Amino acid sequence: MVKVAIVGATGYTALELIKILLNHPQAEIAALCTRQEGSPAIETIHPSLSGRLNLACENLTPTQIAERARFVFLALPHVASMAVVPDLLKAGCRIVDLSADYRFNHPAVYEKWYGHTHTDPGRLGKTVYGLPELFGDRIPTANLVANPGCYTSTSILGLAPFLCQGLIDPKDIIIDGKSGVSGAGRTPKLNLLYAECNESIAAYSVGNHRHEPEIDQVLSDASGTQVEVTFTPHMVPMDRGILCTMYARPTRNLTEADALETMQRFYEGKPFVRVVKQLPSTKDVIHTNYCHMTARISRGRLVVLSVTDNLIKGAAGVAVQNLNLMNRLPETTGLPR
Amino acid sequence: MVKVAIVGATGYTALELIKILLNHPQAEIAALCTRQEGSPAIETIHPSLSGRLNLACENLTPTQIAERARFVFLALPHVASMAVVPDLLKAGCRIVDLSADYRFNHPAVYEKWYGHTHTDPGRLGKTVYGLPELFGDRIPTANLVANPGCYTSTSILGLAPFLCQGLIDPKDIIIDGKSGVSGAGRTPKLNLLYAECNESIAAYSVGNHRHEPEIDQVLSDASGTQVEVTFTPHMVPMDRGILCTMYARPTRNLTEADALETMQRFYEGKPFVRVVKQLPSTKDVIHTNYCHMTARISRGRLVVLSVTDNLIKGAAGVAVQNLNLMNRLPETTGLPR
Amino acid sequence: MVKVAIVGATGYTALELIKILLNHPQAEIAALCTRQEGSPAIETIHPSLSGRLNLACENLTPTQIAERARFVFLALPHVASMAVVPDLLKAGCRIVDLSADYRFNHPAVYEKWYGHTHTDPGRLGKTVYGLPELFGDRIPTANLVANPGCYTSTSILGLAPFLCQGLIDPKDIIIDGKSGVSGAGRTPKLNLLYAECNESIAAYSVGNHRHEPEIDQVLSDASGTQVEVTFTPHMVPMDRGILCTMYARPTRNLTEADALETMQRFYEGKPFVRVVKQLPSTKDVIHTNYCHMTARISRGRLVVLSVTDNLIKGAAGVAVQNLNLMNRLPETTGLPR
Amino acid sequence: MVKVAIVGATGYTALELIKILLNHPQAEIAALCTRQEGSPAIETIHPSLSGRLNLACENLTPTQIAERARFVFLALPHVASMAVVPDLLKAGCRIVDLSADYRFNHPAVYEKWYGHTHTDPGRLGKTVYGLPELFGDRIPTANLVANPGCYTSTSILGLAPFLCQGLIDPKDIIIDGKSGVSGAGRTPKLNLLYAECNESIAAYSVGNHRHEPEIDQVLSDASGTQVEVTFTPHMVPMDRGILCTMYARPTRNLTEADALETMQRFYEGKPFVRVVKQLPSTKDVIHTNYCHMTARISRGRLVVLSVTDNLIKGAAGVAVQNLNLMNRLPETTGLPR
Repeated sequence: MVKVAIVGATGYTALELIKILLNHPQAEIAALCTRQEGSPAIETIHPSLSGRLNLACENLTPTQIAERARFVFLALPHVASMAVVPDLLKAGCRIVDLSADYRFNHPAVYEKWYGHTHTDPGRLGKTVYGLPELFGDRIPTANLVANPGCYTSTSILGLAPFLCQGLIDPKDIIIDGKSGVSGAGRTPKLNLLYAECNESIAAYSVGNHRHEPEIDQVLSDASGTQVEVTFTPHMVPMDRGILCTMYARPTRNLTEADALETMQRFYEGKPFVRVVKQLPSTKDVIHTNYCHMTARISRGRLVVLSVTDNLIKGAAGVAVQNLNLMNRLPETTGLPR
Repeated sequence: MVKVAIVGATGYTALELIKILLNHPQAEIAALCTRQEGSPAIETIHPSLSGRLNLACENLTPTQIAERARFVFLALPHVASMAVVPDLLKAGCRIVDLSADYRFNHPAVYEKWYGHTHTDPGRLGKTVYGLPELFGDRIPTANLVANPGCYTSTSILGLAPFLCQGLIDPKDIIIDGKSGVSGAGRTPKLNLLYAECNESIAAYSVGNHRHEPEIDQVLSDASGTQVEVTFTPHMVPMDRGILCTMYARPTRNLTEADALETMQRFYEGKPFVRVVKQLPSTKDVIHTNYCHMTARISRGRLVVLSVTDNLIKGAAGVAVQNLNLMNRLPETTGLPR
Repeated sequence: MVKVAIVGATGYTALELIKILLNHPQAEIAALCTRQEGSPAIETIHPSLSGRLNLACENLTPTQIAERARFVFLALPHVASMAVVPDLLKAGCRIVDLSADYRFNHPAVYEKWYGHTHTDPGRLGKTVYGLPELFGDRIPTANLVANPGCYTSTSILGLAPFLCQGLIDPKDIIIDGKSGVSGAGRTPKLNLLYAECNESIAAYSVGNHRHEPEIDQVLSDASGTQVEVTFTPHMVPMDRGILCTMYARPTRNLTEADALETMQRFYEGKPFVRVVKQLPSTKDVIHTNYCHMTARISRGRLVVLSVTDNLIKGAAGVAVQNLNLMNRLPETTGLPR
Repeated sequence: MVKVAIVGATGYTALELIKILLNHPQAEIAALCTRQEGSPAIETIHPSLSGRLNLACENLTPTQIAERARFVFLALPHVASMAVVPDLLKAGCRIVDLSADYRFNHPAVYEKWYGHTHTDPGRLGKTVYGLPELFGDRIPTANLVANPGCYTSTSILGLAPFLCQGLIDPKDIIIDGKSGVSGAGRTPKLNLLYAECNESIAAYSVGNHRHEPEIDQVLSDASGTQVEVTFTPHMVPMDRGILCTMYARPTRNLTEADALETMQRFYEGKPFVRVVKQLPSTKDVIHTNYCHMTARISRGRLVVLSVTDNLIKGAAGVAVQNLNLMNRLPETTGLPR
């Protein structure tokens, strides 16, 4: 039984983590942490946990956390993660960090896009990027895993089969991303109010979303070639789910059948990726850890469509998938299907 | 041409007021006021007004307002209204106050339910309650009109025909109200976030919502008998619209046909109330100033169902209906149908 | 391992059944049946099952079903169930029937409300009503269980504690029910189109919904007194979830604390009922088999609020709860929490 | 006063037409036509018209229509329009056809994409395409106007300024379209059910949507160069609104300021196009006849974002805009703002 702590327990991702872990046969939630005063019971923060988890949210130090749990999920905002990672590692914890703090290879990239000096730059470039379908061989032995962003994993999974085999031009890729509102977090802001988001779709952060450099880097690492994508995210009036519609130029003649077979072979044996024939809906995968994807050819362009649940396969689910791999458990243990 | 000021221009009700007034042939928006710094252009606050209204939101005194406009809509929170009403009246303005500050007959009721001492108690009990279908004869000569609450007008309109004719027991009335989220305002709060409200329905303020004493008072005034209702509001995942499902005990035998005829006769000649045969949907009336209502008999109980758009017939629309009456214009002038 | 057949596999309830059973450690789906031609693969009907269940939907006779499975879920419309139940029982199957065909004690009531002559009247009055919280002792030995309706179980669970102890007047009860759209089924109809339901709330079947006599009968059976409720259902723009807001007259002085304690004691040891202090949201329980409930006193009336997921606790979840009891498995086995 | 007939009165576009015309000071609805039996009152088909329009939907011949109205809106499916247009024109009516029947220059294109032989091919290539912002000079004298498709006008308006000045490569354009569900019509179909569409986004008709050749043709006509776009439509869980996110390659260096100025100048004096600085939301324009648009530069690509209400600017609103021009009325008369 893996004893687990969740640091940053008030957000939507943490709630999903808790729900998954409550059904996980080999993991046990040993501590929940927030910086809130007064150690509120978790069910006052997440009413759906009423009667299911009798734990308070405590303000614990890394040492106190390590006394209770050997495995830590950091569901913290960026900057807050790197403030505790070194101490937690020193105290013997293994960590899946759901923030962006350890996703980049170079401090300069982090600093440019996140606007903060990195206080633990020595670990950048050495931390495993926790996308099991691409880096599954390096995860089991890692002590610190950087859990991917939600747009990032959804788009990378769709494009990697083609980029890794040189089938598309790495400099002519457009990712048109569409996400449910939970992706924007649980902090009260005007633009996240129901009466603002509902019955509306809009793009945001065009040309300057922080997932753009992350996608570039990971696809470049995975394919061994310099990838540059144009990424445009949109907010869709739904709770959860991401659809990435991706447009690329084939480098040689590619039929729809070729494209589907390329994806199929690339993900053979991967339990959470399903190559489907029909056009995938986010509703097909929400509340699960699956990624569904398909491909079309339109006027000579390759169109790849990929869907996930942003809170599960895009965050909490893949985090538990990483926990499974890091603990030599079957990859699918406890994950919603 | 009536020159109009809107004080408190940043909320949803103010936006509806502006949109209605832009299409009103006899009214002109002369000033928009907020307490925000820097006189922001209204289109930065409400992007849907881009290019349609070239006005800034200014922080004006009552005197400055009166120099620009003879007619004022106060779309302010309670307490804020009574702070400016006396000066505005003194400066010669006529006012429709959309807050609750002047709705009650007795300061003690106001103070109990709103938690503030009333600073202008002399006007309570003398201010006209701006529900034109019930008090239309007193509105034209008023200088200050208290615009009704949204649940209030929707439920009062449905119950008044029966109470005014003694057809139902005034002490055995249940109002189960359902409202879209815009009714809760535009201030960022956790419980109003899209990912909290969406895909969910819940009751709130059971037994202690501020519209309960308002409904009691107005129905008692209108019917000349002491009315006491049990009111339970619910928040529904939709932008706008209110449905009140109301249960009452007939005092004598009442058929469905009787009930419909009672309503029909009561609202004869009233342009914005439609007694319908089918069960009304909020979608039938949103974006209009109409109230649709019907009645059924179920196990001896009278069930009245009434729908409005909470932002229009429940707030901005009835406010303009009051403006029309106060200026001897046709009641329907400029109102969305 | 219990081998299970699902007859009527194309609807929303069947999809939930399949998803629950795929995660159930002691049950295995052995057959899926529809009357559709051509034995379509289940993933063409429910794309979210892509790659998760490699079964076709077949048109099987009761004998063929019995060869594959000893346990049958009938997710059929009314009338269709009673056409196959006798043969399935004769062939040795145990059955949970999710239709209304075996819920009533008297054929005359069935015939009045469902408009069909009952073809298996001998089993009415002898079939166990599958609400485990009330009739858990009779379910384990039953071969045929009538699974409750969704509004029915949600409201019965809220009212039973008070009726069984004579704390409220059994003839003065109002149930104002609010349901997500999935409760209306998956058959294409104009009133179920997205652009009709969305951004709208309306009542339907006021005074003539088929769940009204079912609620009356079951509450009368459970409490030993003649219960008559006034039931008004509403359709809410959300996929799933039911909230019942219920108004009753206490027969003696009852405080909020009394009411909560009454509920708490009544459901002690029941794993899927949670008495909560805050006002419950449907979002707290959707995608789970839980029922959350609370109580308030408003102007002397008892107000009970109860929420479930109409497709799970209101249909597929309670059906599996019944399977567990009928197979002497722990009641919570495999159920979503 | 223009006497108007609406042929095909049961759909969402017809409802919008009726609502706009009820507020139009110079137009009067003289006839409503459907092929339904029994001349149902329009308020039984559209309950939101209760008490507002006392007309039945009749099954009239072209001659009968012409006796009542000189101006006809055809809100019919394709094929049905070309069956009545010749007779209506012969009878002296002027027509705005909202179907696709007269949008194409060549019968072969129509037949390829719509699968029907064109029965009135002589009018193809001579019919004015009713997009006032591009072809406003030819509309006033036309007797037959082909009203544009909804995706079509939204994307054409965004791209035309750049294509007409040769600023982008006409063969390297991607249009990622997102539409509310009302765009798919009011016929009951499984994929349009609330519980299917809600909480989900998916692409459809990738590479084979009928608006693709329409966009190609109109942009080619407008710019005098052969345009070929890659168009991918998506269905978004909202009632109405279209967002087109468009990606193009500038042919020369283009800054964001250049792009905005290009659009601004192109639409100078056009009352319904607003070039905005912020990223437009569909909510900014729904229930109005406006199109809001902006532009960004992202990694050297031009990204144009354009929003409309698919039922108004994308259908009924532009149809009335055409009526205004054809009757020498101010272009904005009666249109929702």
